[in-house]
Amino acid sequence: MNEIEIIMGNAQEAFDSYKTLSPTKRAGFLHEIASALEAAREQLVPVAHEESNLPLPRLNGELTRTTNQLKMFARLIEEGSWIEAVIDTADENRTPRKPDTRKMLLPVGPVVVFGASNFPFAFSTAGGDTASALAAGSSVIIKGHSSHARTSQLVFEAMQKAIAKTGVHPYTVQHVLGSGSTVGKALVEHPYTTAVGFTGSFNGGKALWEYANRRETPIPVFAEMSSINPVVFLPDTLRANAAALAKQYAASITLGMGQFCTNPGLLIAVQSEALDQFLGLLGEEFTRINPEKMLNSNIHSSYYTALNKALEQKGIEKVGEAGKNAGEGEAFPTVAKVKAGIFLQNPHFREEVFGPYSLAVCCENKDELKTVLRQLKGQLTTTIMATDTDIAGNGDIIDLQTTLAGRIILNDVPTGVEVCASMVHGGPFPATTDGRFTSVGTSAIKRWVRPVCFQGFKDSMLPDALKNNNPLKIWRIVNNEWTNAPI
Amino acid sequence: MNEIEIIMGNAQEAFDSYKTLSPTKRAGFLHEIASALEAAREQLVPVAHEESNLPLPRLNGELTRTTNQLKMFARLIEEGSWIEAVIDTADENRTPRKPDTRKMLLPVGPVVVFGASNFPFAFSTAGGDTASALAAGSSVIIKGHSSHARTSQLVFEAMQKAIAKTGVHPYTVQHVLGSGSTVGKALVEHPYTTAVGFTGSFNGGKALWEYANRRETPIPVFAEMSSINPVVFLPDTLRANAAALAKQYAASITLGMGQFCTNPGLLIAVQSEALDQFLGLLGEEFTRINPEKMLNSNIHSSYYTALNKALEQKGIEKVGEAGKNAGEGEAFPTVAKVKAGIFLQNPHFREEVFGPYSLAVCCENKDELKTVLRQLKGQLTTTIMATDTDIAGNGDIIDLQTTLAGRIILNDVPTGVEVCASMVHGGPFPATTDGRFTSVGTSAIKRWVRPVCFQGFKDSMLPDALKNNNPLKIWRIVNNEWTNAPI
Repeated sequence: MNEIEIIMGNAQEAFDSYKTLSPTKRAGFLHEIASALEAAREQLVPVAHEESNLPLPRLNGELTRTTNQLKMFARLIEEGSWIEAVIDTADENRTPRKPDTRKMLLPVGPVVVFGASNFPFAFSTAGGDTASALAAGSSVIIKGHSSHARTSQLVFEAMQKAIAKTGVHPYTVQHVLGSGSTVGKALVEHPYTTAVGFTGSFNGGKALWEYANRRETPIPVFAEMSSINPVVFLPDTLRANAAALAKQYAASITLGMGQFCTNPGLLIAVQSEALDQFLGLLGEEFTRINPEKMLNSNIHSSYYTALNKALEQKGIEKVGEAGKNAGEGEAFPTVAKVKAGIFLQNPHFREEVFGPYSLAVCCENKDELKTVLRQLKGQLTTTIMATDTDIAGNGDIIDLQTTLAGRIILNDVPTGVEVCASMVHGGPFPATTDGRFTSVGTSAIKRWVRPVCFQGFKDSMLPDALKNNNPLKIWRIVNNEWTNAPI
Repeated sequence: MNEIEIIMGNAQEAFDSYKTLSPTKRAGFLHEIASALEAAREQLVPVAHEESNLPLPRLNGELTRTTNQLKMFARLIEEGSWIEAVIDTADENRTPRKPDTRKMLLPVGPVVVFGASNFPFAFSTAGGDTASALAAGSSVIIKGHSSHARTSQLVFEAMQKAIAKTGVHPYTVQHVLGSGSTVGKALVEHPYTTAVGFTGSFNGGKALWEYANRRETPIPVFAEMSSINPVVFLPDTLRANAAALAKQYAASITLGMGQFCTNPGLLIAVQSEALDQFLGLLGEEFTRINPEKMLNSNIHSSYYTALNKALEQKGIEKVGEAGKNAGEGEAFPTVAKVKAGIFLQNPHFREEVFGPYSLAVCCENKDELKTVLRQLKGQLTTTIMATDTDIAGNGDIIDLQTTLAGRIILNDVPTGVEVCASMVHGGPFPATTDGRFTSVGTSAIKRWVRPVCFQGFKDSMLPDALKNNNPLKIWRIVNNEWTNAPI
């Protein structure tokens, strides 16, 4: 595949140039991309709407999130402590002599980013993966998602304006369209590729991870794949807040027609009158939710295949559904329930149904609820809905949840992922291929770097971050103490 | 394999208890292990000497390094900032409301550590992998190395005394002997195992990594595998310091009979009279080095197989060798040279020869030298020997070296790995399976944890590291600012 050869050669050349730019220059480039996207808003949003069926207000908000992410990474690299500068100065008097050693994080090389169907802006062409990789100093090759190819191309064109304006290497960002199993595979397998970012299906992410591991030199793949985001409802809150909870969760389950990685797909509680009441109210809420168009025909047909398969399982019972029929391309919001005893016997219930669907699991008692939690696979999020009375006796449940996911939420919904330094949008396999990293928030930059130690280097030879006089004025660990002072 | 089932059940139970201990308690346990090892020194060192053929002074030094490592990790977790506490407080006035999110690193679960043949103390039973995993809050299952099984058992017994004395869960550390391809494989494949530490051969490390990746839930394997640690000699230093360099490098290549992962196995320079002189002096130095016993018969026979294979290659020329014949079990120190043109054609020359052997690569010019560097696989270290004059014109060589290894050394030897916060003992594949981590120094603890975000938690429910009043008094990032103050 000659085209890939040319693209990757360009990406390597761009990396060799781009990685030498100062953090200030890289931050300036990120700001220019944000400005170029903002300038193209009137053009971008309608095309994304046409391609994705997502509502205009949502897309406008997503574009703002995208530009904010770019600015956040710009601030991060200007602040500079993310590079983890650690310095141990020499000790000539020790026997044996202690050398001067200094380490920091350096970018690994060209990064391949796969656009995600469900976020045409924030997790695609100029989304979080791209922004964090550019911030780290990587060149980026974007494999645009076919379901919003025109949006992807337009976003790329905006990025090219920022490239022209700032004079960074012209191939710092490249854009390619095509199938994941041919073009995507070839990009992952190319020897110049050093890391991969992906948000999508389990099968898609797992395949990329396998290509990467079969390389002569394996590379990391950060694939965010599948999660059913279990929510535990404790008894006191169900008694006290059934109606409010029903409203809150009906909205969260069907938000964006359930096409979020953090969609609450599993509602777990111990059987009680209050639970029955809550599920009744939840069912009622669903009748007031209208079917809407899904992102594309693949996702639409996958939803119905998965939904019908779920509803065919022995012991499942529908709790509620949308009050009117779904039109062409539309999802049909549905909520069902099953006894935990049956749930535990049937691994099918633990699979993700990507769309506006959730399954309530009704447990005989707390022990069974804990067994359900123990049987789940790794998740992006898990939530606990609880009053103070509930919390008092149920630390063991929260402990179990902590082992299960990257983010544990108290008394809120998992949909809505705050973009900030403390966010973890990641989790144990199969939620992601690598639960040690996040794809949202400033820490997402850590996916594209590795530490390098410089031993015995003269001050003038060291990167600025490690120089004695601390020209970047960053926080560092110097001889085991945190400081932003010069040495 | 019923024994493994029992061991891993115990390890999980121990983890559930041990992870709840405060950093101070865990630090106390590490200190007790160090004391117990110190108390057993007179017993441990002679047995290790008998099993490994390593000289007594080296083993005494290695045991001190081992106890120092334990104390270093104790200090690290008492200081506490390693857990990367990041806090973003809520903003009720923002639309939508900004939630309170707080993240930190938490231990992942039971860790399997494989003892290394070449470091019976520092990279084995109570070595750096075990110390860092215990510091992180993991329970540890040690697969003792068969070539020092008695030493491993004695070290484990010392650790058991520390367990008894501190009252930590009795199965916090467990010890098992047996073959890597049966017992080791079963440990890596067990569902309760969450991470693996290994130092040894490429084939051994790669096999463990493959077992781990074939699991239903893949887990990280931190295998430090193979490195030839290329050293670049620039012309001016060869002219000025040939005799000193020859002495320094003859000693480094043959230190511990070359049985170090950081042994300088490749000496690269541009052809010159000074290079010829240096190689002549290096050869002379070798005649003064005596053959010594290697670690075990496998390593001994592997050395001769690899050495003979290397010396059979077309274009290779011996530069020097030990002045007397090798006795039974002894290595025969050897240094050879080859023209870069031939080196570049024959991938065999890039394979590690584990033992007191090094190959000089003589380049026609600087461009060829850079081609040699570009063709090398990932390394633990790479070194540049250079005067100020040399450095001035050769930044491009140092840049290339920076992409190659975890540690770049100026004017020193790669053997000798300082145990400190800024050390990187790791490097791109195949030096290790994961170049983003180190197995030496405080950062080694990062291998056994993953980040977890707590959203909307009440202060009393949060781990101490994330509480408002900062009871651990650690450095944290609060609303994007570094601080050790309470909130």
